[in-house]
Amino acid sequence: MHPSIITLTTDFGRADTYVAQMKGVILSINPAATIVDVTHEIPAQDIMRGSIALGEMWQTFPVGTIHVAVVDPGVGTSRGILAATCDGRLFVLPNNGLLSHVLKTTHADEIVELQDQRFWRTSVSNTFHGRDIMAPVAAHLSLGVRLDELGPPAADVNLLDFQKPLFEERQLIGAIIYIDGFGNLITNIELPHLRQIPTTAITVCCKQQRIEGISRTYAQHPPGTLIALPSSRGHLELAVVGGNASLHLDARTSDTVVLRW
Amino acid sequence: MHPSIITLTTDFGRADTYVAQMKGVILSINPAATIVDVTHEIPAQDIMRGSIALGEMWQTFPVGTIHVAVVDPGVGTSRGILAATCDGRLFVLPNNGLLSHVLKTTHADEIVELQDQRFWRTSVSNTFHGRDIMAPVAAHLSLGVRLDELGPPAADVNLLDFQKPLFEERQLIGAIIYIDGFGNLITNIELPHLRQIPTTAITVCCKQQRIEGISRTYAQHPPGTLIALPSSRGHLELAVVGGNASLHLDARTSDTVVLRW
Amino acid sequence: MHPSIITLTTDFGRADTYVAQMKGVILSINPAATIVDVTHEIPAQDIMRGSIALGEMWQTFPVGTIHVAVVDPGVGTSRGILAATCDGRLFVLPNNGLLSHVLKTTHADEIVELQDQRFWRTSVSNTFHGRDIMAPVAAHLSLGVRLDELGPPAADVNLLDFQKPLFEERQLIGAIIYIDGFGNLITNIELPHLRQIPTTAITVCCKQQRIEGISRTYAQHPPGTLIALPSSRGHLELAVVGGNASLHLDARTSDTVVLRW
Repeated sequence: MHPSIITLTTDFGRADTYVAQMKGVILSINPAATIVDVTHEIPAQDIMRGSIALGEMWQTFPVGTIHVAVVDPGVGTSRGILAATCDGRLFVLPNNGLLSHVLKTTHADEIVELQDQRFWRTSVSNTFHGRDIMAPVAAHLSLGVRLDELGPPAADVNLLDFQKPLFEERQLIGAIIYIDGFGNLITNIELPHLRQIPTTAITVCCKQQRIEGISRTYAQHPPGTLIALPSSRGHLELAVVGGNASLHLDARTSDTVVLRW
Repeated sequence: MHPSIITLTTDFGRADTYVAQMKGVILSINPAATIVDVTHEIPAQDIMRGSIALGEMWQTFPVGTIHVAVVDPGVGTSRGILAATCDGRLFVLPNNGLLSHVLKTTHADEIVELQDQRFWRTSVSNTFHGRDIMAPVAAHLSLGVRLDELGPPAADVNLLDFQKPLFEERQLIGAIIYIDGFGNLITNIELPHLRQIPTTAITVCCKQQRIEGISRTYAQHPPGTLIALPSSRGHLELAVVGGNASLHLDARTSDTVVLRW
Repeated sequence: MHPSIITLTTDFGRADTYVAQMKGVILSINPAATIVDVTHEIPAQDIMRGSIALGEMWQTFPVGTIHVAVVDPGVGTSRGILAATCDGRLFVLPNNGLLSHVLKTTHADEIVELQDQRFWRTSVSNTFHGRDIMAPVAAHLSLGVRLDELGPPAADVNLLDFQKPLFEERQLIGAIIYIDGFGNLITNIELPHLRQIPTTAITVCCKQQRIEGISRTYAQHPPGTLIALPSSRGHLELAVVGGNASLHLDARTSDTVVLRW
């Protein structure tokens, strides 16, 4: 019995049986696997959002966990599929940038391109490599198969271009990178950036609204207040106490957030 | 190996990685835990709805189950976090009323306030105590840690005010407490109330519509019929056979339901 | 310890605690069961869609898996509940047609009607047999109870009428049977039908639009192209590369799809 943990991050939604088909394939190979749904609500084919999701959660899982991510607009083309090891966790995902946020904070110890079809389903469709290649490979990894058995070292690894915040004279120009389910606006301004600017007399501007200072927690302000605070993952976040900042500001991903001092 | 069951009830939604981060923390401490998602679609910060959800399902799980609930608008304030034992099940949740519906039908054998940081994550954020305090505490409980190791007895336990149905001359005035995914209207009128009134010649009134009598099952009436019947959890429920009572009546939570006889 | 796999396919949605109540009942009987959510977003009372979902995924799970399906508009009537064995997998579901798509490609080795109340919850509600009968029966099956202990052979098994595609002079007239979460249009035209028609000079027509030829994969065409291709389950599917065919064509379930040659 190999009770390994396999997580799934996809854009498949929950209404169809695509996720269940992947689980059936995994459990057919390793019935003792513990499968964890990270999310299946990555917007369709949004590789950036999938990469952010992986980056947010991969380190909360124990060493040995196998993270599978399927946001795969290139399925059926010659884009490769990777298996990688970073900090003791394993990753199985298309070579399309999905690993980018993981590689922001660590390096990969080994990355191979999946080629050995012994670890795939007997019949591989053209449209569902999550079920036919990635799920069985993850299951075999959970049984102790080594990366170098799966294929040769990856020749190159595709990475996404990140929009980095821009330091200017007495201001820092960032952007909203995504909006969570509470309507909180998560920006690309992170704690290391905040450490480079004054801690007092900061103004945060977004969509014509100004916020004075950076708060520590939602709850130190009355309901309805628009605040800026560090998120639980270390990003500057805009939130409305007890409310929805996205609706309040009519804000969208990529909208600009400026810090002035 | 401690194969304990840990359930999660939150308002986090399924699109973000918040739930997965909690699961990663739990599995890092106890890889053998069986984690069950109750629901992550409690409306944002709706403590009443979270309390109702706990009250509906906690007893269907076996003795020893650890129920974690995170609907936590007060995160980052001085509101405490509780661990409690009721009827052999354990609860880990903010001290904000979430335990109210459980305590309607039983009493707590022990309630402590979480204080011993040995059982928390090393670094505790101001905005995500579900991941940083409640998840690790639940995982440690699943490994056999005792309640009294977590902190001192809770000084007081916050409870919600319930709107109870009101008996008047030949009528009982109740209200819709929530609407389920089928559009069924669940009321605060329960079987013990129904036992106090005549069993014949009852009229149920809601939103100007009258229903004659209380049915036993959906299926004894033709599709489209508006009926009143006891729900699977013992509440009087209004339903449209094969349809959606909420849309049919344009009904909302807190709308009045009157029984006359 | 019997670490059997039990899957759940329902129309309960994820917001309520109905699914969790079923899981609590299962884990109270067999704490070692591995429970897999297939989907809980079958449209309310849509037996056809539930049957399609079962048909899509049941064989991806290993022999010994117990598939429970609850789409049950007849709950509380005299409709029976079945337990069946097909190809080594077990099924527990109302006798209302839910097993139809499984039985399209295989036969049942044994089908019984649930009657022995020893394997049910002590108290059975009129409105929630998923929790009170099907969940406990599935849990007992996972512990090794035999089908013939549950009740007598089923006298008859209800099956759905399928709309089969119609061969005419140089054309094949099919229909959309469902639309997946990506907006792909899945039709009732399957690989065996396609093998009976020419492989070249085929035109696919739907909603006044014409598609020339059948593709092998999404990715061989530029984004925005409307294509027809075999789905990962062997059905002819209409898709927009990188887009949503359902929105593009304003298409619905039951709309006609015609192949001409």
